[in-house]
Amino acid sequence: MSASLGELAERFELGLHGPAERRVTTVGTLATADVSAVAFFANPLYRAQLGTTRAGAVVLHERDRAACPVPALVAANPYAAYARIAGFLHPLSPAAPGIHASASVAGDASVADSAEVQAHVCIGSGTRIGPRCLIGAGSIIGAHVVIEADTRLAPRVVVLDRVHVGARCLLHSGAVVGADGFGFAADRGGWIKVPQLGSVMIGNDVEIGANTAIDRGTIENTVIGDGVKLDNLIQIAHNVRIGAHTVMAGMSGIAGSTRVGERCLIGGAVSIIGHLEICDDVTILVRSVVTRSIKLAGTYSGVLPADEAARWRRKVARFNRLDGFEERLRRLEQGAGAGPQKRDKDHG
Amino acid sequence: MSASLGELAERFELGLHGPAERRVTTVGTLATADVSAVAFFANPLYRAQLGTTRAGAVVLHERDRAACPVPALVAANPYAAYARIAGFLHPLSPAAPGIHASASVAGDASVADSAEVQAHVCIGSGTRIGPRCLIGAGSIIGAHVVIEADTRLAPRVVVLDRVHVGARCLLHSGAVVGADGFGFAADRGGWIKVPQLGSVMIGNDVEIGANTAIDRGTIENTVIGDGVKLDNLIQIAHNVRIGAHTVMAGMSGIAGSTRVGERCLIGGAVSIIGHLEICDDVTILVRSVVTRSIKLAGTYSGVLPADEAARWRRKVARFNRLDGFEERLRRLEQGAGAGPQKRDKDHG
Amino acid sequence: MSASLGELAERFELGLHGPAERRVTTVGTLATADVSAVAFFANPLYRAQLGTTRAGAVVLHERDRAACPVPALVAANPYAAYARIAGFLHPLSPAAPGIHASASVAGDASVADSAEVQAHVCIGSGTRIGPRCLIGAGSIIGAHVVIEADTRLAPRVVVLDRVHVGARCLLHSGAVVGADGFGFAADRGGWIKVPQLGSVMIGNDVEIGANTAIDRGTIENTVIGDGVKLDNLIQIAHNVRIGAHTVMAGMSGIAGSTRVGERCLIGGAVSIIGHLEICDDVTILVRSVVTRSIKLAGTYSGVLPADEAARWRRKVARFNRLDGFEERLRRLEQGAGAGPQKRDKDHG
Repeated sequence: MSASLGELAERFELGLHGPAERRVTTVGTLATADVSAVAFFANPLYRAQLGTTRAGAVVLHERDRAACPVPALVAANPYAAYARIAGFLHPLSPAAPGIHASASVAGDASVADSAEVQAHVCIGSGTRIGPRCLIGAGSIIGAHVVIEADTRLAPRVVVLDRVHVGARCLLHSGAVVGADGFGFAADRGGWIKVPQLGSVMIGNDVEIGANTAIDRGTIENTVIGDGVKLDNLIQIAHNVRIGAHTVMAGMSGIAGSTRVGERCLIGGAVSIIGHLEICDDVTILVRSVVTRSIKLAGTYSGVLPADEAARWRRKVARFNRLDGFEERLRRLEQGAGAGPQKRDKDHG
Repeated sequence: MSASLGELAERFELGLHGPAERRVTTVGTLATADVSAVAFFANPLYRAQLGTTRAGAVVLHERDRAACPVPALVAANPYAAYARIAGFLHPLSPAAPGIHASASVAGDASVADSAEVQAHVCIGSGTRIGPRCLIGAGSIIGAHVVIEADTRLAPRVVVLDRVHVGARCLLHSGAVVGADGFGFAADRGGWIKVPQLGSVMIGNDVEIGANTAIDRGTIENTVIGDGVKLDNLIQIAHNVRIGAHTVMAGMSGIAGSTRVGERCLIGGAVSIIGHLEICDDVTILVRSVVTRSIKLAGTYSGVLPADEAARWRRKVARFNRLDGFEERLRRLEQGAGAGPQKRDKDHG
Repeated sequence: MSASLGELAERFELGLHGPAERRVTTVGTLATADVSAVAFFANPLYRAQLGTTRAGAVVLHERDRAACPVPALVAANPYAAYARIAGFLHPLSPAAPGIHASASVAGDASVADSAEVQAHVCIGSGTRIGPRCLIGAGSIIGAHVVIEADTRLAPRVVVLDRVHVGARCLLHSGAVVGADGFGFAADRGGWIKVPQLGSVMIGNDVEIGANTAIDRGTIENTVIGDGVKLDNLIQIAHNVRIGAHTVMAGMSGIAGSTRVGERCLIGGAVSIIGHLEICDDVTILVRSVVTRSIKLAGTYSGVLPADEAARWRRKVARFNRLDGFEERLRRLEQGAGAGPQKRDKDHG
């Protein structure tokens, strides 16, 4: 796809400073873009690169325009404008309607005429695939599943019985939606399986990363809200509910029955234990472990950064003898003649 | 499936307080079950819901019977009894015997007549699939594998050469059993692969979660005991042995050659390093890192819970200067005129 | 495969102490090897087993030869020599040239005559599969992919459009190479997808574990250097670059745009945040979280080992009141009459 700067400015409501007729065909970084590519500038770390860029145009904020040596496309939110331009110049190829001869589609499944079903796909009984959906090669879709319009499954996705996937979703390879939740009742030294009878409801505009797993609910449904974005290798346990537009980075996990609010930002490798409530607009930084409900919007953290190993070992040793520290403090306080100090309020 | 309360009481040896002829068809939560559904009460947190439930019956302990406004099924272990009732009312559909035309089955493989092999399955040379097994669509089973009776593979499971899977197991989508262990010998700045010649032995009644990986042993086998339950996205490295009835929650990992005892409960996102021994009846709480063998049954923990970010930063800062604390304590102790205090026993 | 000790000594340039004509057919551990198997001794922990081994021969260092009761193959690097012998005695079966009838290969894809393409494989348009490659059952290879000579994909691997995989690589089941990186621009409470236009370049002699995910770059490529070894369930985000011969253990993750040097050793469940630089020859121990660039080769650590739960709770309580400790220290220092002590240099 190619476009002139003038077309881009008009389509995305950007200010244009430069030749409207210049044509661009792609996007690039400030450092590597040539005259055919649009770059963007949003992170001050890259200011030096802005000064020397040879891009065909740069998407940036009005305040940075003076520093830009090439044509500028001015936006209130340059990164969002850049994302839109990149999507416009590199559109997804549309679904190629039809069902591959090697696919196995149940007789009573309904596949929209405009949908593409690639090789070695299986589609179960009573399942409905909406208009313009693309079901990637080797994907397995169970029985009584609904996949709404314009949703795409990359190759080798699994969507199990009765799951509902909204419109315009994107599920990446290896994702498994609707496997049994992990529920067992202890009995005489063994375990009895608790049937997992609920399903998974996925809203519209959801993205699910490679090899991410979302389990079905025990009785009710696991629910993923509209616009939620899940990265790779995430675990969503049974009965979890995630509010609209929440984003989770890779390798995070949420244990059973926890509810996460809307517009939360959950960093990589975060663990949230079960049966909690996390309110809206919570940010949780990388690798934190959340063990209590969060009722206040804000930023939460819980990681001790790695250090050079010998120094770290000393820290661990001191952590392990904090007990002794407290005892020594107490002795000193008593020895100081004033008797034991009043304990600090934050003591356990 | 439907049953009368009388039938349920008799089949599962429960006390019945209410009309034996009332019929139920499903299960539900205390809050949402209607008269056709059985609920259970085991967690005191839900006592208020018990008081207002409209369930057809509630499975509960004798001591809670008086608080139940609807018919009661009395059990010593209500959750286990509930699990059995749920399984009875919602039985798995039996395997539909036969091999799908699109499956690729080696000429010398043996598939029981009563087994179901779904579309796009591959079964390798010399492999044996037992009676009433169900092999889900797109699953790949290598050569010389044995899968015992009544085991089910969800769609798109991989079981590689020579793995042995016991009876009545359930493997979820994306699970990979028998990939190479991770073994390399350092040599002149590069790595030489150590062939992984062992296999994986999986006992009876084992459940393996979605996208979980269990590697084959280097020389001997990786061994998963009877009744072990593994959640999603778990990593079991080569030569690990897990004792019977041990349960691991999602995203946990066990490094090479570690042995875990029987009836252990391993929380989510736990890491256990290699070459350890964990004895029987050990509970390890969420996200702990186990770096030493555990020889005493009991509960082990190792996580610092996340906190509001500014408060957390102060904690980290203080953790990082524990060194200084100790030095200041020492100076105070010396200044106190009593000379350095005897060091506490737990000092490193 | 079988070989005499003399042949092994000659082929791998080892010293032989024992009968050159003795034939061995396999490898084993010191404890279990019989006369037909070669064992190795490298870890002093196993010295007792060396003394009683019945192996056909033991690969060991010259300094340990006297302690060996059976024939010895002497090597400067016994583990590497053992790995080579094991690989020689248990060679991979060569690719069986040909394309399975059930595979779906694009008309303009090029598959070397000597390559093996197993059942239910899909190969996209313009893709090139090199000589002696083996593409395992159910693997999906996108369009315009290049897979160089002698590379093997285990069953059910996904390699997406335009990815380049070098020679002699081994990709394990469930690995996904080339899914979209996780990039979204915030806009009015929602998210706009940032197209992921780069690809993944994988060098030669790379191994990628089961269910590991390597995302494509945003504009440029994600790059995995020659000889890199990645274990299972690893997440490599977009734009990451990993230097040659670096090894990562299972469940580790690297966030976007971070560069890791050559010959690094990254332990299990390590997290490295985005936009960092880790220099060559860095070792990062299990479960560490790396939050800053590392410019100095060496060993880094960051984990607090689990402890018995009651003891751990006391540690956490004390960690949480370090604040109070500092305040009490300060009061004591002031009370000591010398006024506040000069603060230690490492204070924040």
